[in-house]
Amino acid sequence: MFHYPNGRKTVQSAPQKSSPQTKTEYGKRGMTLEEDINQSNEFYLAKGLAVIHKKPTPVQIVSVHYPKRSAAVIQEAYFKTASTTDYNGVYKGRHIDFEAKETKNKSSFPLKNFHVHQISHMEAVQKQGGIAFVILRFSLIDETFLLDASYLFPYFKSGYKGRKSILLSEIASCGMALPLSLSPRIHYLKAVDALYFTSIGS
Amino acid sequence: MFHYPNGRKTVQSAPQKSSPQTKTEYGKRGMTLEEDINQSNEFYLAKGLAVIHKKPTPVQIVSVHYPKRSAAVIQEAYFKTASTTDYNGVYKGRHIDFEAKETKNKSSFPLKNFHVHQISHMEAVQKQGGIAFVILRFSLIDETFLLDASYLFPYFKSGYKGRKSILLSEIASCGMALPLSLSPRIHYLKAVDALYFTSIGS
Repeated sequence: MFHYPNGRKTVQSAPQKSSPQTKTEYGKRGMTLEEDINQSNEFYLAKGLAVIHKKPTPVQIVSVHYPKRSAAVIQEAYFKTASTTDYNGVYKGRHIDFEAKETKNKSSFPLKNFHVHQISHMEAVQKQGGIAFVILRFSLIDETFLLDASYLFPYFKSGYKGRKSILLSEIASCGMALPLSLSPRIHYLKAVDALYFTSIGS
Repeated sequence: MFHYPNGRKTVQSAPQKSSPQTKTEYGKRGMTLEEDINQSNEFYLAKGLAVIHKKPTPVQIVSVHYPKRSAAVIQEAYFKTASTTDYNGVYKGRHIDFEAKETKNKSSFPLKNFHVHQISHMEAVQKQGGIAFVILRFSLIDETFLLDASYLFPYFKSGYKGRKSILLSEIASCGMALPLSLSPRIHYLKAVDALYFTSIGS
């Protein structure tokens, strides 16, 4: 039902979804999406496959103390809203730009966690010939997808479908499911290959 | 003498360099290199020419206070060493990655301000087909250059030429001089075009 980049279908895991015990185990075994992606990026970097990093959290620094003979201490600072995506880098000569988000919803992904300027940023990246996508995880049903950013753009035009969440069914049919593995935890470059570097025969 | 991307030579400014008064004026009129680049990136973004941003300063957050009814306050944090370059983005489909530094030296650029992992990062970016360079400003003689990062790599191999600074003459002959203008303040994409998007006839 989901498009796995390795051609594997979700045959094994699909029937388990309705069992509550399985859900609990899924919860235990999981790292956060951010940890999964960071580990995968380290793997890609070490293997020379791609150079993709998470950007530092943007912080507005107000006050810094410089004690004698030790490191400067930031004593007052505030979180700033990110104006770009969290992850970017280069893969096979192409610029890669993406944002990753998790939800506890089971049938649709709320888009309120995306800022309008992140959406504008991904639009601008695509206009410059870069690759921009989102990685969306439904943590309770343990499904993660890579979806080209362009599918989100219409939701940020006023009044589009009157809603601010994107259905799992749309994500599953337009995106690419990302199975978990050991190393890298999420081999999302496989999906990038399938979506952006080869023509896909249906 | 310097390779300006617009074909202009440094005829006007070159003879002024030995005058101390002129140096003072140069100092007054200048914004920092970072401000010049940020302004240029905003210009490029607004005009749809490129999507290039400065990464946030990496900070290790230790303690955060959450006051009632107001924004979270970071009360203890420390500066971390950057593991990548400060600037990156996408231009004409290519990944752009660069670091910018200033010196008050007049005849060579000390490389101690570059971290070894920044150099490794730029090497990795180039291996992935990305464009990696440095922008180097000699603030006292008011000259700024764009230099492909590969010219720096040998200096970080042990014992290379026995020195940790790169001569202005090498920068001027291998790089591209960046004249200041009003908007954008530093039109470095002109140099990027000349170095990476066209074949240069000598």
